[in-house]
Amino acid sequence: MTEADFPKQEFEGRLVRAQRAMRATGLDAMFFTTEAEVRYFTGFRTLFWQSPTRPWFLVVPGEGQPIAIVPEIGAALMAETWIDDIRTWSSPHATDDGISLLGDVLKRFAVVGMPMGRESSLRMALTDFERLRNSLPGTRFTDCTPLVRDLRMVKSEAEIDVLRHICAIASDAFDKAPELFHIGQPLSEAFRAFRVALLRAGADDVPYLVGGAGPGGYPDVISPPGARPLQPGDVLMLDTGATLRGYHCDFDRNFAFGDADETARAGYRTLHRATDAALAVARPGVTCAELHRTMQAVIGQDTGDVGRYGHGLGMQLTESPSIIGFDDTVMQPGMVMTLEPSMVLAEGRIMVHEENLVIRDGEPELLSRRAPAELPVLEAAT
Amino acid sequence: MTEADFPKQEFEGRLVRAQRAMRATGLDAMFFTTEAEVRYFTGFRTLFWQSPTRPWFLVVPGEGQPIAIVPEIGAALMAETWIDDIRTWSSPHATDDGISLLGDVLKRFAVVGMPMGRESSLRMALTDFERLRNSLPGTRFTDCTPLVRDLRMVKSEAEIDVLRHICAIASDAFDKAPELFHIGQPLSEAFRAFRVALLRAGADDVPYLVGGAGPGGYPDVISPPGARPLQPGDVLMLDTGATLRGYHCDFDRNFAFGDADETARAGYRTLHRATDAALAVARPGVTCAELHRTMQAVIGQDTGDVGRYGHGLGMQLTESPSIIGFDDTVMQPGMVMTLEPSMVLAEGRIMVHEENLVIRDGEPELLSRRAPAELPVLEAAT
Repeated sequence: MTEADFPKQEFEGRLVRAQRAMRATGLDAMFFTTEAEVRYFTGFRTLFWQSPTRPWFLVVPGEGQPIAIVPEIGAALMAETWIDDIRTWSSPHATDDGISLLGDVLKRFAVVGMPMGRESSLRMALTDFERLRNSLPGTRFTDCTPLVRDLRMVKSEAEIDVLRHICAIASDAFDKAPELFHIGQPLSEAFRAFRVALLRAGADDVPYLVGGAGPGGYPDVISPPGARPLQPGDVLMLDTGATLRGYHCDFDRNFAFGDADETARAGYRTLHRATDAALAVARPGVTCAELHRTMQAVIGQDTGDVGRYGHGLGMQLTESPSIIGFDDTVMQPGMVMTLEPSMVLAEGRIMVHEENLVIRDGEPELLSRRAPAELPVLEAAT
Repeated sequence: MTEADFPKQEFEGRLVRAQRAMRATGLDAMFFTTEAEVRYFTGFRTLFWQSPTRPWFLVVPGEGQPIAIVPEIGAALMAETWIDDIRTWSSPHATDDGISLLGDVLKRFAVVGMPMGRESSLRMALTDFERLRNSLPGTRFTDCTPLVRDLRMVKSEAEIDVLRHICAIASDAFDKAPELFHIGQPLSEAFRAFRVALLRAGADDVPYLVGGAGPGGYPDVISPPGARPLQPGDVLMLDTGATLRGYHCDFDRNFAFGDADETARAGYRTLHRATDAALAVARPGVTCAELHRTMQAVIGQDTGDVGRYGHGLGMQLTESPSIIGFDDTVMQPGMVMTLEPSMVLAEGRIMVHEENLVIRDGEPELLSRRAPAELPVLEAAT
């Protein structure tokens, strides 16, 4: 028996809000195939989604309880959630991997919403989806991306408690940097040491860890680590999405080794000030576009390759909305966001800062322990 | 600069084989949106796929070099691969997240294959895919799942070297079980200790770790760990997909604590014998269905909830084919497979065994260090 991540009321509240929004937008049901959405409504949490073999389906009707249509291998775990209506088949299946079972559930609905828009994907065979659609001539499938985004983007206090906890764990791990990282250490070993530190500090898992290191900055923010040893003058950046009970932190820290050149120090200060400026205006009613403009005014550059200065955060490492000029999403209390200003220091040399926060009435609540105002230097030459 | 996972010839060989198969099946190009397929043809490896925000596209033409159509944030890393034709856009984008750029590439092809079948998913907004399809009236999209499966399922010796290495690392970590696991330890702490042991043994990452523990067996094989402490008489099973350079091991081990009841011991022996029986027949020319039948004959039960007795293994934790009665895929030298027989010991109590191997001319090569023939007992009562 696995402990539920949240009490039943959490999921009942999500369902009530979803069904209210569905009535307002004329949806008879919603249909999901992806991990975050299935977990949002059911509490079903497993790493087994990493196996692409089996599809998993959830139908949220406009009235009544959600219906899980899942492979038999998931029946026991789904039965531990608050979901009562669980229909299973033996998967993988030679000819019908849950499609007729799913069709039986969906056929009574005229308008079925599913995420088809920004940030969505279809986690089932396209041929099966087309077969399903063709078998349901009385059902129209329509995009419900905005509805689901609006629901998920405002977190409950129960969700925020978990997010606060994982951010504290990652902050604790980053605080150990002077013990973990040193000149001469291959970058891959620095990553390994940091993964272990995150686990020891209490993280359940470290599904995301990227970063870079190089003289006075790094060329890239999405690469896996190479074997090059850390050198005096390097700036190391580690960006982690560690998890607790399936919720992510997502922030980074920069460290110089031995010494830091003035370009790196100045860039760091600029990004720190950009974050301060965003924290000063991150209030309910402000839009993503305004947050973006605020940071850009301090940085004095475009977002460049990165494309945005932060995003939503929760069950996924990145969630809607995006802190970018075209995103007019309005901040609301309970939204958990990253602020992630970045800048080009020189050709092939960038710097990124990131903090995690909750939008509150009044000042935002910082979840990550605020980075120091000056670029920290490890093993400083004395 | 990140080191390439494989020399250029590895990718050239993959392209040559793909283009030969495309000619044989009448495809003018193939189009991919998912991590494993993009990495297979390019070598582009990053954990950044975990962010759902940006789509990534790869087009493999019937003649000539692959074309990567990727967000600017990925341009530097893609430029380090063997791919020369890289087209980027600033993503996320308000109105056109790479779709017109992609359309410009695809419009010259009449028949475009993409994975639409078993184990596939569409990692882009369905509305964007439909917009793309509508913008290309002269292009027909067709399923190329079998072609891609046949290519990826036979591994090169370079791939097998990495798989052998990560399996050895996980075997080393499992060998430390007597130091890592103990009576009174919460299951969640056993998971944490094992993750750390895998990293210390040399794994890059532990994206998959599931398991269970309970008196004489466990109820489930896909659950995250709870806080219940390990107790005398428990059987603990840990099933790990640790990675090295983006390739997975996938095998499990069972351990009893204090003592084991005869049902658990006998079940363990049966599963070990089922694996031996499969190893004795796993030769080129044998089908998945025959491997399944061989194990089922020893076990004397149906596959039950799990649905199959093993699968392919590589860049993904599970890959085609499936060791199941309806899968007639023929074993070929170089296929890397798991053997994963399971059985129901009693109501709510199952047991699973798993080993990883390479199909060779003659006897298969075992990649996981073979589990002992008798259920190991830790902290045995003396």
